[in-house]
Amino acid sequence: MRLSQLGELGLLAELERRGLILGVEHDAAQLGDGLVVTQDVLVEGIHFRLDWLTWRELGFRAAAVNLSDLAASGATPEALLVTFAAPASTSLADAIALYEGIAETGVAVVGGDTSSAADVVVGVTAVGRAERVPGRAGARPDDLLVVTGPLGAAGAAFRRGEYARPPLRLDEGRRLARHAHAMLDLSDGLAVDAAHLARRSDVRCVVDLDAVPLTGGATLDDLGFGEDFELLAAVEDADGFPVVGRVEDGEGVMLLHAGAPYDLHGYEHFSPVAQR
Amino acid sequence: MRLSQLGELGLLAELERRGLILGVEHDAAQLGDGLVVTQDVLVEGIHFRLDWLTWRELGFRAAAVNLSDLAASGATPEALLVTFAAPASTSLADAIALYEGIAETGVAVVGGDTSSAADVVVGVTAVGRAERVPGRAGARPDDLLVVTGPLGAAGAAFRRGEYARPPLRLDEGRRLARHAHAMLDLSDGLAVDAAHLARRSDVRCVVDLDAVPLTGGATLDDLGFGEDFELLAAVEDADGFPVVGRVEDGEGVMLLHAGAPYDLHGYEHFSPVAQR
Repeated sequence: MRLSQLGELGLLAELERRGLILGVEHDAAQLGDGLVVTQDVLVEGIHFRLDWLTWRELGFRAAAVNLSDLAASGATPEALLVTFAAPASTSLADAIALYEGIAETGVAVVGGDTSSAADVVVGVTAVGRAERVPGRAGARPDDLLVVTGPLGAAGAAFRRGEYARPPLRLDEGRRLARHAHAMLDLSDGLAVDAAHLARRSDVRCVVDLDAVPLTGGATLDDLGFGEDFELLAAVEDADGFPVVGRVEDGEGVMLLHAGAPYDLHGYEHFSPVAQR
Repeated sequence: MRLSQLGELGLLAELERRGLILGVEHDAAQLGDGLVVTQDVLVEGIHFRLDWLTWRELGFRAAAVNLSDLAASGATPEALLVTFAAPASTSLADAIALYEGIAETGVAVVGGDTSSAADVVVGVTAVGRAERVPGRAGARPDDLLVVTGPLGAAGAAFRRGEYARPPLRLDEGRRLARHAHAMLDLSDGLAVDAAHLARRSDVRCVVDLDAVPLTGGATLDDLGFGEDFELLAAVEDADGFPVVGRVEDGEGVMLLHAGAPYDLHGYEHFSPVAQR
Protein backbone atom coordinates (compact mmCIF):
# COMPACT_ATOMS: atom_id res chain seq x y z
CA MET A 1 0.00 0.00 0.00
CA ARG A 2 1.38 3.41 -1.06
CA LEU A 3 0.52 6.72 0.61
CA SER A 4 -0.91 7.84 -2.74
CA GLN A 5 -3.56 5.10 -2.47
CA LEU A 6 -4.19 5.66 1.22
CA GLY A 7 -4.34 9.46 1.33
CA GLU A 8 -3.41 11.76 4.19
CA LEU A 9 -6.51 10.94 6.24
CA GLY A 10 -6.01 7.24 5.64
CA LEU A 11 -2.43 7.48 6.86
CA LEU A 12 -3.46 9.38 9.97
CA ALA A 13 -6.21 6.83 10.68
CA GLU A 14 -3.71 3.94 10.36
CA LEU A 15 -1.25 5.68 12.70
CA GLU A 16 -3.97 6.48 15.22
CA ARG A 17 -5.33 2.92 15.13
CA ARG A 18 -1.85 1.65 16.03
CA GLY A 19 -1.50 4.15 18.89
CA LEU A 20 1.40 5.88 17.13
CA ILE A 21 -0.28 9.29 17.14
CA LEU A 22 -2.97 10.76 19.37
CA GLY A 23 -5.58 13.45 19.14
CA VAL A 24 -5.72 14.05 15.42
CA GLU A 25 -9.37 15.02 15.80
CA HIS A 26 -8.37 18.57 16.66
CA ASP A 27 -6.73 21.35 14.70
CA ALA A 28 -4.26 21.80 17.51
CA ALA A 29 -3.02 19.53 20.29
CA GLN A 30 -4.00 20.33 23.86
CA LEU A 31 -1.30 19.84 26.48
CA GLY A 32 -2.93 20.87 29.76
CA ASP A 33 -3.02 24.29 31.45
CA GLY A 34 -4.87 25.53 28.36
CA LEU A 35 -1.75 25.07 26.27
CA VAL A 36 -2.45 24.51 22.58
CA VAL A 37 0.21 23.59 20.03
CA THR A 38 -0.04 23.13 16.28
CA GLN A 39 2.39 22.46 13.45
CA ASP A 40 2.07 22.81 9.69
CA VAL A 41 4.62 22.68 6.96
CA LEU A 42 4.72 24.29 3.52
CA VAL A 43 6.79 22.47 0.89
CA GLU A 44 7.89 24.13 -2.37
CA GLY A 45 6.27 22.51 -5.39
CA ILE A 46 3.51 21.01 -3.22
CA HIS A 47 2.00 23.88 -1.22
CA PHE A 48 3.49 26.85 -3.05
CA ARG A 49 5.67 27.98 -5.94
CA LEU A 50 7.97 30.95 -5.65
CA ASP A 51 6.70 32.33 -8.96
CA TRP A 52 3.23 32.40 -7.37
CA LEU A 53 3.95 34.28 -4.14
CA THR A 54 6.77 36.40 -2.77
CA TRP A 55 9.10 35.31 0.03
CA ARG A 56 7.33 37.75 2.32
CA GLU A 57 3.92 36.30 1.43
CA LEU A 58 5.33 32.81 1.97
CA GLY A 59 6.45 33.78 5.47
CA PHE A 60 3.09 35.30 6.37
CA ARG A 61 1.29 32.28 4.94
CA ALA A 62 3.43 29.72 6.81
CA ALA A 63 2.66 31.48 10.08
CA ALA A 64 -0.99 32.21 9.23
CA VAL A 65 -1.97 28.62 8.44
CA ASN A 66 -0.79 27.64 11.92
CA LEU A 67 -2.40 30.64 13.59
CA SER A 68 -5.60 29.57 11.82
CA ASP A 69 -5.41 26.27 13.74
CA LEU A 70 -5.00 28.24 16.97
CA ALA A 71 -7.97 30.39 15.96
CA ALA A 72 -10.04 27.23 15.45
CA SER A 73 -9.03 26.29 18.99
CA GLY A 74 -10.10 29.64 20.42
CA ALA A 75 -6.49 30.26 21.47
CA THR A 76 -4.37 33.36 21.90
CA PRO A 77 -0.94 32.84 20.26
CA GLU A 78 2.13 33.11 22.47
CA ALA A 79 5.01 32.17 20.20
CA LEU A 80 6.12 30.62 16.92
CA LEU A 81 8.95 28.23 16.15
CA VAL A 82 10.12 28.29 12.55
CA THR A 83 12.05 25.69 10.60
CA PHE A 84 13.44 27.11 7.37
CA ALA A 85 15.17 24.84 4.85
CA ALA A 86 16.33 26.25 1.52
CA PRO A 87 19.03 25.82 -1.13
CA ALA A 88 22.40 27.26 -0.06
CA SER A 89 22.16 29.59 -3.07
CA THR A 90 19.16 31.39 -1.47
CA SER A 91 19.86 35.10 -0.88
CA LEU A 92 19.94 36.63 2.58
CA ALA A 93 17.45 39.24 1.33
CA ASP A 94 14.93 36.50 0.49
CA ALA A 95 15.43 34.81 3.86
CA ILE A 96 14.91 38.13 5.65
CA ALA A 97 11.77 38.80 3.59
CA LEU A 98 10.42 35.40 4.68
CA TYR A 99 10.90 36.20 8.37
CA GLU A 100 9.48 39.73 7.84
CA GLY A 101 6.36 38.08 6.46
CA ILE A 102 6.14 35.91 9.57
CA ALA A 103 6.61 39.01 11.76
CA GLU A 104 3.57 40.62 10.05
CA THR A 105 1.39 38.25 12.08
CA GLY A 106 2.59 40.00 15.24
CA VAL A 107 3.61 36.76 16.95
CA ALA A 108 7.26 36.40 18.02
CA VAL A 109 9.55 33.71 16.63
CA VAL A 110 11.30 32.26 19.68
CA GLY A 111 13.14 29.35 18.13
CA GLY A 112 13.37 26.84 15.34
CA ASP A 113 15.94 25.45 12.96
CA THR A 114 17.56 26.24 9.63
CA SER A 115 19.00 23.84 7.09
CA SER A 116 19.99 23.61 3.48
CA ALA A 117 17.63 21.59 1.27
CA ALA A 118 16.93 21.04 -2.42
CA ASP A 119 13.47 22.63 -2.14
CA VAL A 120 12.28 25.37 0.19
CA VAL A 121 10.49 23.99 3.25
CA VAL A 122 8.95 26.23 5.89
CA GLY A 123 7.65 24.46 9.00
CA VAL A 124 5.98 26.46 11.73
CA THR A 125 4.87 25.48 15.20
CA ALA A 126 2.44 27.85 16.90
CA VAL A 127 1.97 27.77 20.67
CA GLY A 128 -1.00 29.42 22.35
CA ARG A 129 -3.38 29.28 25.29
CA ALA A 130 -7.10 28.73 25.23
CA GLU A 131 -9.77 28.90 27.91
CA ARG A 132 -12.06 26.52 26.06
CA VAL A 133 -11.27 24.47 22.95
CA PRO A 134 -14.49 23.43 21.16
CA GLY A 135 -12.81 20.59 19.24
CA ARG A 136 -14.53 18.76 16.40
CA ALA A 137 -16.56 16.15 18.23
CA GLY A 138 -19.33 18.16 19.93
CA ALA A 139 -21.67 19.20 17.11
CA ARG A 140 -25.31 18.29 17.86
CA PRO A 141 -28.42 17.88 15.72
CA ASP A 142 -30.18 21.26 15.20
CA ASP A 143 -26.92 23.22 15.59
CA LEU A 144 -26.40 25.98 13.05
CA LEU A 145 -23.27 25.92 10.89
CA VAL A 146 -21.64 29.35 10.64
CA VAL A 147 -18.53 30.69 8.91
CA THR A 148 -16.39 33.70 9.85
CA GLY A 149 -16.14 35.27 6.40
CA PRO A 150 -16.56 34.89 2.65
CA LEU A 151 -15.13 31.77 0.99
CA GLY A 152 -13.64 30.95 -2.40
CA ALA A 153 -10.87 33.58 -2.43
CA ALA A 154 -8.03 31.05 -2.61
CA GLY A 155 -9.61 28.97 -5.35
CA ALA A 156 -10.61 31.99 -7.43
CA ALA A 157 -7.12 33.50 -7.10
CA PHE A 158 -5.52 30.18 -8.09
CA ARG A 159 -7.65 30.03 -11.26
CA ARG A 160 -6.41 33.49 -12.19
CA GLY A 161 -2.77 32.60 -11.44
CA GLU A 162 -2.85 34.96 -8.47
CA TYR A 163 -2.22 34.55 -4.78
CA ALA A 164 -4.76 35.09 -1.98
CA ARG A 165 -3.41 36.11 1.41
CA PRO A 166 -5.05 34.05 4.18
CA PRO A 167 -7.03 35.90 6.85
CA LEU A 168 -6.27 35.74 10.60
CA ARG A 169 -9.46 34.93 12.50
CA LEU A 170 -8.06 34.88 16.03
CA ASP A 171 -10.62 37.31 17.49
CA GLU A 172 -13.50 35.50 15.80
CA GLY A 173 -12.12 32.17 16.99
CA ARG A 174 -11.98 33.27 20.62
CA ARG A 175 -15.49 34.71 20.39
CA LEU A 176 -16.96 31.52 18.89
CA ALA A 177 -14.93 29.24 21.19
CA ARG A 178 -16.89 30.50 24.20
CA HIS A 179 -20.04 28.72 23.02
CA ALA A 180 -19.41 26.69 19.82
CA HIS A 181 -20.13 22.95 20.09
CA ALA A 182 -17.49 22.22 17.43
CA MET A 183 -15.16 24.33 15.31
CA LEU A 184 -12.40 23.90 12.74
CA ASP A 185 -10.68 25.97 10.09
CA LEU A 186 -11.48 25.59 6.41
CA SER A 187 -8.19 24.42 4.96
CA ASP A 188 -9.13 21.34 2.92
CA GLY A 189 -12.32 22.65 1.29
CA LEU A 190 -15.81 23.16 2.65
CA ALA A 191 -17.05 19.62 1.87
CA VAL A 192 -13.97 17.85 3.25
CA ASP A 193 -13.81 19.98 6.39
CA ALA A 194 -17.53 19.62 7.06
CA ALA A 195 -17.02 15.86 6.69
CA HIS A 196 -14.29 15.96 9.39
CA LEU A 197 -16.74 17.65 11.71
CA ALA A 198 -19.58 15.25 10.81
CA ARG A 199 -17.43 12.15 11.35
CA ARG A 200 -15.93 13.26 14.65
CA SER A 201 -19.30 14.45 15.98
CA ASP A 202 -21.23 11.46 14.58
CA VAL A 203 -23.74 13.74 12.86
CA ARG A 204 -24.62 14.89 9.34
CA CYS A 205 -23.75 18.37 8.09
CA VAL A 206 -26.21 19.85 5.62
CA VAL A 207 -24.66 22.84 3.85
CA ASP A 208 -26.76 25.21 1.75
CA LEU A 209 -24.21 26.37 -0.82
CA ASP A 210 -26.51 29.21 -1.83
CA ALA A 211 -26.15 30.64 1.69
CA VAL A 212 -22.35 30.55 1.64
CA PRO A 213 -20.88 34.07 1.33
CA LEU A 214 -18.54 34.10 -1.68
CA THR A 215 -15.59 36.40 -2.29
CA GLY A 216 -16.02 38.56 -5.40
CA GLY A 217 -15.09 36.52 -8.49
CA ALA A 218 -15.48 33.18 -6.73
CA THR A 219 -17.83 30.43 -7.92
CA LEU A 220 -19.27 27.47 -6.03
CA ASP A 221 -16.54 25.19 -7.37
CA ASP A 222 -13.89 27.41 -5.76
CA LEU A 223 -15.25 26.20 -2.39
CA GLY A 224 -13.72 22.80 -3.13
CA PHE A 225 -10.23 24.29 -3.39
CA GLY A 226 -9.96 24.99 0.31
CA GLU A 227 -7.22 27.13 1.83
CA ASP A 228 -9.69 29.89 2.69
CA PHE A 229 -8.75 29.67 6.38
CA GLU A 230 -12.07 30.96 7.60
CA LEU A 231 -13.58 29.09 10.55
CA LEU A 232 -16.57 26.73 10.42
CA ALA A 233 -18.45 26.32 13.69
CA ALA A 234 -21.48 24.40 14.93
CA VAL A 235 -23.42 26.68 17.29
CA GLU A 236 -26.83 27.17 18.86
CA ASP A 237 -26.61 30.94 18.42
CA ALA A 238 -25.17 32.33 15.18
CA ASP A 239 -24.07 35.47 17.07
CA GLY A 240 -24.08 37.54 13.87
CA PHE A 241 -21.99 35.14 11.78
CA PRO A 242 -23.36 33.96 8.38
CA VAL A 243 -25.34 30.70 8.69
CA VAL A 244 -24.40 28.24 5.91
CA GLY A 245 -26.18 25.12 7.05
CA ARG A 246 -27.33 22.96 9.93
CA VAL A 247 -26.50 19.77 11.76
CA GLU A 248 -28.79 16.72 11.55
CA ASP A 249 -28.88 13.18 12.83
CA GLY A 250 -27.06 10.93 10.40
CA GLU A 251 -23.63 10.92 8.87
CA GLY A 252 -21.58 12.59 6.14
CA VAL A 253 -22.14 15.86 4.36
CA MET A 254 -25.02 16.90 2.14
CA LEU A 255 -24.34 19.91 -0.04
CA LEU A 256 -27.39 21.62 -1.50
CA HIS A 257 -27.52 24.02 -4.44
CA ALA A 258 -30.86 25.29 -5.68
CA GLY A 259 -32.42 22.66 -3.44
CA ALA A 260 -30.56 19.72 -5.08
CA PRO A 261 -27.44 17.78 -4.02
CA TYR A 262 -24.16 19.20 -5.37
CA ASP A 263 -20.69 17.66 -5.56
CA LEU A 264 -17.56 19.51 -4.41
CA HIS A 265 -14.11 17.98 -4.49
CA GLY A 266 -11.51 18.76 -1.84
CA TYR A 267 -7.81 18.54 -1.37
CA GLU A 268 -6.03 15.28 -0.64
CA HIS A 269 -2.31 15.59 0.05
CA PHE A 270 -1.01 12.25 -1.19
CA SER A 271 -3.40 11.87 -4.11
CA PRO A 272 -1.61 12.58 -7.39
CA VAL A 273 -4.91 13.62 -8.99
CA ALA A 274 -5.52 16.47 -6.60
CA GLN A 275 -1.96 17.74 -6.34
CA ARG A 276 -1.39 21.28 -7.46
CA MET B 1 24.89 37.71 -0.12
CA ARG B 2 23.95 34.01 -0.33
CA LEU B 3 23.19 31.77 2.65
CA SER B 4 26.16 29.62 1.58
CA GLN B 5 28.47 32.59 2.28
CA LEU B 6 26.72 33.61 5.47
CA GLY B 7 26.28 30.21 7.12
CA GLU B 8 23.53 29.12 9.50
CA LEU B 9 24.89 31.08 12.46
CA GLY B 10 25.36 34.17 10.28
CA LEU B 11 21.74 33.91 9.13
CA LEU B 12 20.47 33.54 12.69
CA ALA B 13 22.59 36.52 13.80
CA GLU B 14 21.18 38.68 10.98
CA LEU B 15 17.61 37.69 11.85
CA GLU B 16 18.18 38.30 15.56
CA ARG B 17 19.78 41.70 14.90
CA ARG B 18 16.66 42.74 12.98
CA GLY B 19 14.35 41.55 15.78
CA LEU B 20 12.83 38.89 13.49
CA ILE B 21 13.71 36.01 15.83
CA LEU B 22 14.33 35.91 19.58
CA GLY B 23 16.17 33.70 22.00
CA VAL B 24 18.43 31.72 19.69
CA GLU B 25 20.97 31.51 22.51
CA HIS B 26 19.20 28.48 23.91
CA ASP B 27 18.67 24.96 22.64
CA ALA B 28 14.99 25.32 23.35
CA ALA B 29 12.68 28.31 23.68
CA GLN B 30 11.26 29.10 27.12
CA LEU B 31 7.64 30.20 27.18
CA GLY B 32 6.85 30.78 30.84
CA ASP B 33 5.46 28.33 33.44
CA GLY B 34 8.60 26.25 32.84
CA LEU B 35 7.41 25.43 29.34
CA VAL B 36 10.22 24.58 26.93
CA VAL B 37 9.72 24.06 23.19
CA THR B 38 12.18 23.05 20.51
CA GLN B 39 12.00 22.21 16.82
CA ASP B 40 14.44 20.47 14.50
CA VAL B 41 14.02 19.17 11.01
CA LEU B 42 15.73 16.32 9.16
CA VAL B 43 15.90 16.67 5.37
CA GLU B 44 16.71 13.74 3.08
CA GLY B 45 20.01 14.27 1.25
CA ILE B 46 21.14 16.84 3.84
CA HIS B 47 20.77 15.21 7.26
CA PHE B 48 20.26 11.60 6.25
CA ARG B 49 20.06 9.14 3.39
CA LEU B 50 17.67 6.23 3.37
CA ASP B 51 20.44 3.86 2.34
CA TRP B 52 22.24 4.90 5.54
CA LEU B 53 19.51 4.36 8.13
CA THR B 54 16.18 2.56 8.26
CA TRP B 55 12.81 4.33 8.45
CA ARG B 56 12.53 3.26 12.05
CA GLU B 57 15.97 4.69 12.87
CA LEU B 58 15.01 7.88 11.06
CA GLY B 59 11.93 8.23 13.25
CA PHE B 60 13.86 7.64 16.46
CA ARG B 61 16.56 10.08 15.33
CA ALA B 62 14.11 12.86 14.37
CA ALA B 63 12.54 12.65 17.83
CA ALA B 64 15.86 12.14 19.66
CA VAL B 65 17.61 15.23 18.27
CA ASN B 66 14.74 17.32 19.64
CA LEU B 67 14.62 15.48 22.95
CA SER B 68 18.36 16.19 23.16
CA ASP B 69 17.54 19.91 23.11
CA LEU B 70 15.04 19.34 25.91
CA ALA B 71 17.72 17.38 27.81
CA ALA B 72 20.09 20.35 27.42
CA SER B 73 17.33 22.47 28.95
CA GLY B 74 16.89 20.12 31.90
CA ALA B 75 13.31 19.48 30.79
CA THR B 76 10.94 16.54 31.05
CA PRO B 77 9.24 15.89 27.67
CA GLU B 78 5.44 16.12 27.53
CA ALA B 79 4.64 15.68 23.86
CA LEU B 80 5.87 15.65 20.28
CA LEU B 81 4.39 17.13 17.14
CA VAL B 82 5.57 15.51 13.93
CA THR B 83 5.56 16.84 10.39
CA PHE B 84 6.14 14.10 7.85
CA ALA B 85 6.56 14.94 4.16
CA ALA B 86 7.42 12.20 1.67
CA PRO B 87 6.88 11.18 -1.95
CA ALA B 88 3.37 9.84 -2.60
CA SER B 89 5.01 6.56 -3.67
CA THR B 90 6.21 5.95 -0.09
CA SER B 91 4.79 2.73 1.36
CA LEU B 92 2.49 2.67 4.36
CA ALA B 93 4.86 0.14 5.98
CA ASP B 94 7.73 2.65 5.80
CA ALA B 95 5.58 5.45 7.21
CA ILE B 96 4.49 3.20 10.09
CA ALA B 97 8.12 2.20 10.75
CA LEU B 98 9.00 5.91 10.98
CA TYR B 99 6.33 6.56 13.60
CA GLU B 100 7.30 3.35 15.46
CA GLY B 101 10.83 4.72 15.69
CA ILE B 102 9.46 7.94 17.16
CA ALA B 103 7.38 5.92 19.64
CA GLU B 104 10.58 4.20 20.85
CA THR B 105 11.45 7.45 22.63
CA GLY B 106 8.41 6.93 24.85
CA VAL B 107 7.03 10.42 24.19
CA ALA B 108 3.55 10.66 22.66
CA VAL B 109 2.90 12.24 19.27
CA VAL B 110 -0.09 14.54 19.82
CA GLY B 111 -0.22 16.34 16.50
CA GLY B 112 1.56 17.49 13.40
CA ASP B 113 1.11 17.47 9.67
CA THR B 114 1.68 15.23 6.67
CA SER B 115 2.35 16.20 3.09
CA SER B 116 3.71 14.87 -0.13
CA ALA B 117 7.17 16.17 -1.10
CA ALA B 118 9.99 15.31 -3.51
CA ASP B 119 12.35 14.43 -0.64
CA VAL B 120 11.54 13.03 2.78
CA VAL B 121 11.34 15.73 5.45
CA VAL B 122 10.71 14.93 9.11
CA GLY B 123 10.17 17.93 11.36
CA VAL B 124 9.61 17.41 15.06
CA THR B 125 8.58 19.82 17.79
CA ALA B 126 9.21 18.66 21.35
CA VAL B 127 7.38 20.27 24.26
CA GLY B 128 8.54 19.84 27.84
CA ARG B 129 8.70 21.44 31.25
CA ALA B 130 11.80 22.42 33.21
CA GLU B 131 12.30 23.70 36.73
CA ARG B 132 15.55 25.46 35.84
CA VAL B 133 17.02 25.98 32.36
CA PRO B 134 20.79 26.65 32.57
CA GLY B 135 20.96 28.26 29.11
CA ARG B 136 24.25 29.03 27.40
CA ALA B 137 25.15 32.41 28.87
CA GLY B 138 26.10 31.63 32.48
CA ALA B 139 29.48 29.89 32.27
CA ARG B 140 32.05 31.51 34.61
CA PRO B 141 35.86 31.44 34.77
CA ASP B 142 37.09 28.42 36.74
CA ASP B 143 34.01 26.36 35.87
CA LEU B 144 34.70 22.78 34.86
CA LEU B 145 33.49 21.55 31.47
CA VAL B 146 31.87 18.12 31.67
CA VAL B 147 30.21 15.78 29.15
CA THR B 148 27.56 13.14 29.75
CA GLY B 149 29.18 10.32 27.77
CA PRO B 150 31.77 9.25 25.23
CA LEU B 151 32.02 11.23 21.99
CA GLY B 152 32.96 10.44 18.40
CA ALA B 153 30.43 7.67 17.77
CA ALA B 154 28.60 9.51 15.00
CA GLY B 155 31.78 10.54 13.16
CA ALA B 156 33.36 7.12 13.45
CA ALA B 157 30.19 5.41 12.24
CA PHE B 158 29.94 7.83 9.30
CA ARG B 159 33.52 7.02 8.24
CA ARG B 160 32.62 3.34 8.21
CA GLY B 161 29.39 3.95 6.26
CA GLU B 162 27.39 2.96 9.33
CA TYR B 163 24.76 4.69 11.40
CA ALA B 164 25.06 5.64 15.08
CA ARG B 165 21.86 5.85 17.08
CA PRO B 166 21.81 9.03 19.21
CA PRO B 167 21.56 8.66 23.00
CA LEU B 168 18.78 10.18 25.12
CA ARG B 169 20.32 12.11 28.03
CA LEU B 170 17.13 13.35 29.68
CA ASP B 171 17.98 12.07 33.18
CA GLU B 172 21.53 13.44 32.99
CA GLY B 173 20.19 16.76 31.68
CA ARG B 174 17.77 17.15 34.58
CA ARG B 175 20.51 16.23 37.07
CA LEU B 176 23.00 18.75 35.62
CA ALA B 177 20.34 21.45 35.15
CA ARG B 178 19.97 21.74 38.93
CA HIS B 179 23.39 23.35 39.24
CA ALA B 180 25.06 23.86 35.81
CA HIS B 181 25.97 27.45 34.95
CA ALA B 182 25.55 26.69 31.24
CA MET B 183 24.64 23.63 29.20
CA LEU B 184 24.00 22.63 25.59
CA ASP B 185 23.92 19.48 23.52
CA LEU B 186 26.78 18.48 21.23
CA SER B 187 25.17 18.55 17.82
CA ASP B 188 27.54 20.67 15.72
CA GLY B 189 30.88 19.27 16.95
CA LEU B 190 32.79 19.81 20.18
CA ALA B 191 34.71 22.88 18.97
CA VAL B 192 31.69 24.61 17.42
CA ASP B 193 29.42 23.90 20.37
CA ALA B 194 32.04 24.99 22.92
CA ALA B 195 32.35 28.19 20.85
CA HIS B 196 28.59 28.80 21.20
CA LEU B 197 28.93 28.51 24.95
CA ALA B 198 32.06 30.72 25.05
CA ARG B 199 30.46 33.46 22.94
CA ARG B 200 27.16 33.54 24.82
CA SER B 201 28.89 33.43 28.23
CA ASP B 202 31.66 35.87 27.20
CA VAL B 203 34.38 33.46 28.34
CA ARG B 204 36.99 31.16 26.83
CA CYS B 205 36.56 27.39 26.82
CA VAL B 206 39.77 25.40 27.11
CA VAL B 207 39.18 21.77 26.11
CA ASP B 208 41.74 19.06 26.80
CA LEU B 209 41.08 16.66 23.94
CA ASP B 210 43.12 13.99 25.71
CA ALA B 211 40.58 14.02 28.53
CA VAL B 212 37.57 13.57 26.22
CA PRO B 213 36.12 10.05 26.51
CA LEU B 214 35.99 8.53 23.03
CA THR B 215 33.71 5.80 21.76
CA GLY B 216 35.55 2.66 20.67
CA GLY B 217 36.91 3.17 17.14
CA ALA B 218 36.66 6.97 17.29
CA THR B 219 39.60 9.30 16.75
CA LEU B 220 40.05 12.94 17.77
CA ASP B 221 38.97 14.12 14.32
CA ASP B 222 35.61 12.38 14.78
CA LEU B 223 34.89 14.99 17.47
CA GLY B 224 34.58 17.58 14.72
CA PHE B 225 31.75 15.64 13.07
CA GLY B 226 29.25 16.44 15.80
CA GLU B 227 25.87 14.70 16.12
CA ASP B 228 26.96 12.86 19.26
CA PHE B 229 24.05 14.40 21.23
CA GLU B 230 25.82 14.13 24.56
CA LEU B 231 25.53 17.21 26.79
CA LEU B 232 28.32 19.72 27.51
CA ALA B 233 27.95 21.65 30.78
CA ALA B 234 29.91 24.29 32.68
CA VAL B 235 29.73 23.40 36.38
CA GLU B 236 31.47 24.04 39.69
CA ASP B 237 31.04 20.41 40.73
CA ALA B 238 31.61 17.68 38.14
CA ASP B 239 29.18 15.41 40.04
CA GLY B 240 30.82 12.29 38.61
CA PHE B 241 30.69 13.35 34.96
CA PRO B 242 33.94 13.27 32.92
CA VAL B 243 35.79 16.62 33.00
CA VAL B 244 36.99 17.63 29.54
CA GLY B 245 38.18 21.17 30.16
CA ARG B 246 37.69 24.41 32.02
CA VAL B 247 36.38 27.93 31.56
CA GLU B 248 38.75 30.94 31.57
CA ASP B 249 38.56 34.67 31.13
CA GLY B 250 38.86 35.51 27.46
CA GLU B 251 37.01 34.44 24.34
CA GLY B 252 36.78 31.57 21.88
CA VAL B 253 37.81 27.97 22.24
CA MET B 254 41.28 26.55 22.78
CA LEU B 255 41.60 22.85 22.03
CA LEU B 256 44.66 21.14 23.46
CA HIS B 257 46.16 17.81 22.40
CA ALA B 258 49.41 16.61 23.98
CA GLY B 259 49.68 20.11 25.47
CA ALA B 260 49.58 21.88 22.07
CA PRO B 261 46.71 23.63 20.22
CA TYR B 262 44.71 21.38 17.89
CA ASP B 263 42.27 22.25 15.12
CA LEU B 264 38.84 20.60 14.79
CA HIS B 265 36.35 21.51 12.12
CA GLY B 266 32.63 21.48 12.75
CA TYR B 267 29.43 21.34 10.80
CA GLU B 268 27.99 24.37 9.01
CA HIS B 269 24.59 23.90 7.43
CA PHE B 270 24.73 26.27 4.47
CA SER B 271 28.41 25.81 3.67
CA PRO B 272 28.82 23.64 0.57
CA VAL B 273 32.27 22.57 1.80
CA ALA B 274 30.96 20.95 4.96
CA GLN B 275 27.80 19.42 3.50
CA ARG B 276 27.57 15.71 3.72
